[in-house]
Amino acid sequence: MTDLQSVLLTDLYQLTMLQGYWREGMNDNAVFELFVRKFPPNRNFLIAAGLEQALDYLENLRFTEEECNFLQGTGFFDSEFIDWLAQLTFTGDVDAMPEGTVFFPDEPILRVTAPLPQAQLVETRLINLLQFQTLIASKAARCVLAAPGKLLVDFGLRRAHGSEAGLLAARAAYLAGFTGTSNVLAGMEFSIPIFGTMAHSYIMAHDDELEAFRAFAHAQPNNVVLLIDTYDTLKAVDKVIALAEELKRENITIKAVRIDSGDLAALAKQVRQKLDHAGLDQIGIFASGDLDEYALKRFTHDNIPIGGFGIGTKLTTSNDVPYLNCAYKLQEYASIARRKVSKGKQTWPGRKQVYRRYDASGKIEKDIITLMNDPQEGEALLQPVMKNGKRLQTPESLGAIRERTAYNLEALPSGLQTLDQTTQYPVEISPCLIRLTQEIDKKIGLR
Amino acid sequence: MTDLQSVLLTDLYQLTMLQGYWREGMNDNAVFELFVRKFPPNRNFLIAAGLEQALDYLENLRFTEEECNFLQGTGFFDSEFIDWLAQLTFTGDVDAMPEGTVFFPDEPILRVTAPLPQAQLVETRLINLLQFQTLIASKAARCVLAAPGKLLVDFGLRRAHGSEAGLLAARAAYLAGFTGTSNVLAGMEFSIPIFGTMAHSYIMAHDDELEAFRAFAHAQPNNVVLLIDTYDTLKAVDKVIALAEELKRENITIKAVRIDSGDLAALAKQVRQKLDHAGLDQIGIFASGDLDEYALKRFTHDNIPIGGFGIGTKLTTSNDVPYLNCAYKLQEYASIARRKVSKGKQTWPGRKQVYRRYDASGKIEKDIITLMNDPQEGEALLQPVMKNGKRLQTPESLGAIRERTAYNLEALPSGLQTLDQTTQYPVEISPCLIRLTQEIDKKIGLR
Repeated sequence: MTDLQSVLLTDLYQLTMLQGYWREGMNDNAVFELFVRKFPPNRNFLIAAGLEQALDYLENLRFTEEECNFLQGTGFFDSEFIDWLAQLTFTGDVDAMPEGTVFFPDEPILRVTAPLPQAQLVETRLINLLQFQTLIASKAARCVLAAPGKLLVDFGLRRAHGSEAGLLAARAAYLAGFTGTSNVLAGMEFSIPIFGTMAHSYIMAHDDELEAFRAFAHAQPNNVVLLIDTYDTLKAVDKVIALAEELKRENITIKAVRIDSGDLAALAKQVRQKLDHAGLDQIGIFASGDLDEYALKRFTHDNIPIGGFGIGTKLTTSNDVPYLNCAYKLQEYASIARRKVSKGKQTWPGRKQVYRRYDASGKIEKDIITLMNDPQEGEALLQPVMKNGKRLQTPESLGAIRERTAYNLEALPSGLQTLDQTTQYPVEISPCLIRLTQEIDKKIGLR
Repeated sequence: MTDLQSVLLTDLYQLTMLQGYWREGMNDNAVFELFVRKFPPNRNFLIAAGLEQALDYLENLRFTEEECNFLQGTGFFDSEFIDWLAQLTFTGDVDAMPEGTVFFPDEPILRVTAPLPQAQLVETRLINLLQFQTLIASKAARCVLAAPGKLLVDFGLRRAHGSEAGLLAARAAYLAGFTGTSNVLAGMEFSIPIFGTMAHSYIMAHDDELEAFRAFAHAQPNNVVLLIDTYDTLKAVDKVIALAEELKRENITIKAVRIDSGDLAALAKQVRQKLDHAGLDQIGIFASGDLDEYALKRFTHDNIPIGGFGIGTKLTTSNDVPYLNCAYKLQEYASIARRKVSKGKQTWPGRKQVYRRYDASGKIEKDIITLMNDPQEGEALLQPVMKNGKRLQTPESLGAIRERTAYNLEALPSGLQTLDQTTQYPVEISPCLIRLTQEIDKKIGLR
């Protein structure tokens, strides 16, 4: 298959608009900001993620000869325009919230300042990269809050929407606090800890379940986690108990059993009881199968003896919220602030900054969205990350981002740490931003 | 970023199981089948899609030196096992339903027959590829059924889950009957017709809306579709009417206007009236913004004068059904049929075929799932597509698949062509398949 990082991974209208800008000589600086308009009711906050891949995309943006030839053949474009595209690179500036930062509606998480055609062209892929990881990091953070102290592993590659979704979901889940992933490529690409033992097919390919357990223990003596629900979960535990005794003589320890179907809570209690009764309290219980943050919350609340969870499909598809209402909007062109007023899609104009204030206990208290030239007390969340098309810092380690997320989740007011919304976080629009908006509306003739 | 077609795009447990199989010399032929267990209530049928990419994956499956080195460093594997992986290729057979075929619960859409380790290893990526395109093709088919004869364009790249999802969603939508896509890369990769004109930012970057319309018409004289909802939709139509007169002198025709916000139905009627009143009945109306098959159905029902639709986020995320309950299960190993009996996840064992019967009017009437060695009347849906690791046919053209889908949708009973379920399609399990299942259960000790 083709290069999945191609610059042609964009909407055709970006290129038809570019031909317009090029023809009209509209090459002044434009400012675009990326934000999420309205949050769904079951998201109290979102976690910014995907910046690393976005910067990588901008730094490497080029039209290859093959791509130019394809564009020429479409009939939409002039040859001179395509010659101009062939030499295009991204030379602009980027300010952004660091990955792992909690954010709220209408707050820009990324600003691009660049000659209009460049800033326009990158819209589609920037949204594509940032919305997806933000979506998954936010879902994963909810799981982390719902199951404090538990081992959480991303199992969702198979039902993720394609290869990149699978890979980047593993990254987003890890930076949000997951322990690791089953995705081997994510292990290689991002040094995320990888987890995995056996599927039902391994048991089924053997004529006997105990024989399958034994063979696996010999094949993976340091990684013995046995899947016990292929036929009869409780009967399988008896086999595990017998095998544990046998393996002890070979100095092999069974780390855990995994349950993947049935009433996980009820089964876990029965399995725990049987294992404890046999003196095998060091064997842990790992569960998987159709899990999400709500299931985790119930297990936590009911003190179910499960030490770790594989969270799959519902994590990597963010099934209850499979997309965010995010936008990348022109806020300023040629030093004049701009505003879209389409019904239900109005935006706050101008170059903005978000200031965050904390209370005495270290919890976040209030955010203020204002214009860049209106400094406020508090932490300025958008920071310069790219200047003239070059990154200002070396890429952050995933570990550092993961710590920032943990710190951000800790700083959330307790009413926002729940799965359902109990309080609204105050995001204030500054007087000068409101004033600018009114001035533009007057100019457009709306007031 | 790394190669998104890497063989490491798999779950770690596939590789730990493989080390077990390798160690135990379990290299006999295994049969795995891929199917969807239960359909969600708002899917009367699914459309098989993604086979082309699945076969491509199998034909090119290799472990590179870099990948082997990474695996060595994880500590999970023996060196000799990694040497064995380094020479692994896929040498098995594949039978499958052709892309564009309508299918129902429990019907295998793909069967892999290969030495156990090979057949096991490919599980994750096969599901990843086939479930996603099937998901999107099925969602797209619902849009096609809801808006017969309309121009339907995939606009969903930006909120698709990553690059591959965006690219393959365009393919899946097109094969299901969409007219084209905004995704330029999909145009290059799959020769899908591409569509696109302008965004709100183009209008906003100009100081005057009419000036923006005029400049665009000159930049794209053969592709003049004007976005009219940036400020005031009805006032913008007046500008379009004035511009049409002016452009006539230059022999430039305005093809359509696009509305992207507000009450699309009400606006379309008012816009149509204004255009018709000005004698501009040749200017079409194209709508976009938060659309799905239910919105299309309402427009069709109410005869709203909109000729084309851009369907974005809800198509490429399949928002109401963001994943399918699909599985790839071991059905036979070393010539012995196998069956998983985990609670709620029981499977039909053995190598199966699906026969489809048609009534006199050409509508599909009934499917029968049975064993391969139990031929039935009707059309056998699974066909050989790969033998000893090599494709049996050259890849089908997307156009041919698109025609097959159209034929399949036409052949659906009318009760299944609706968006909500009104009838259930009969899928019969053959007596010999039921018998085999009972025999296995007896052997496992369940009955």
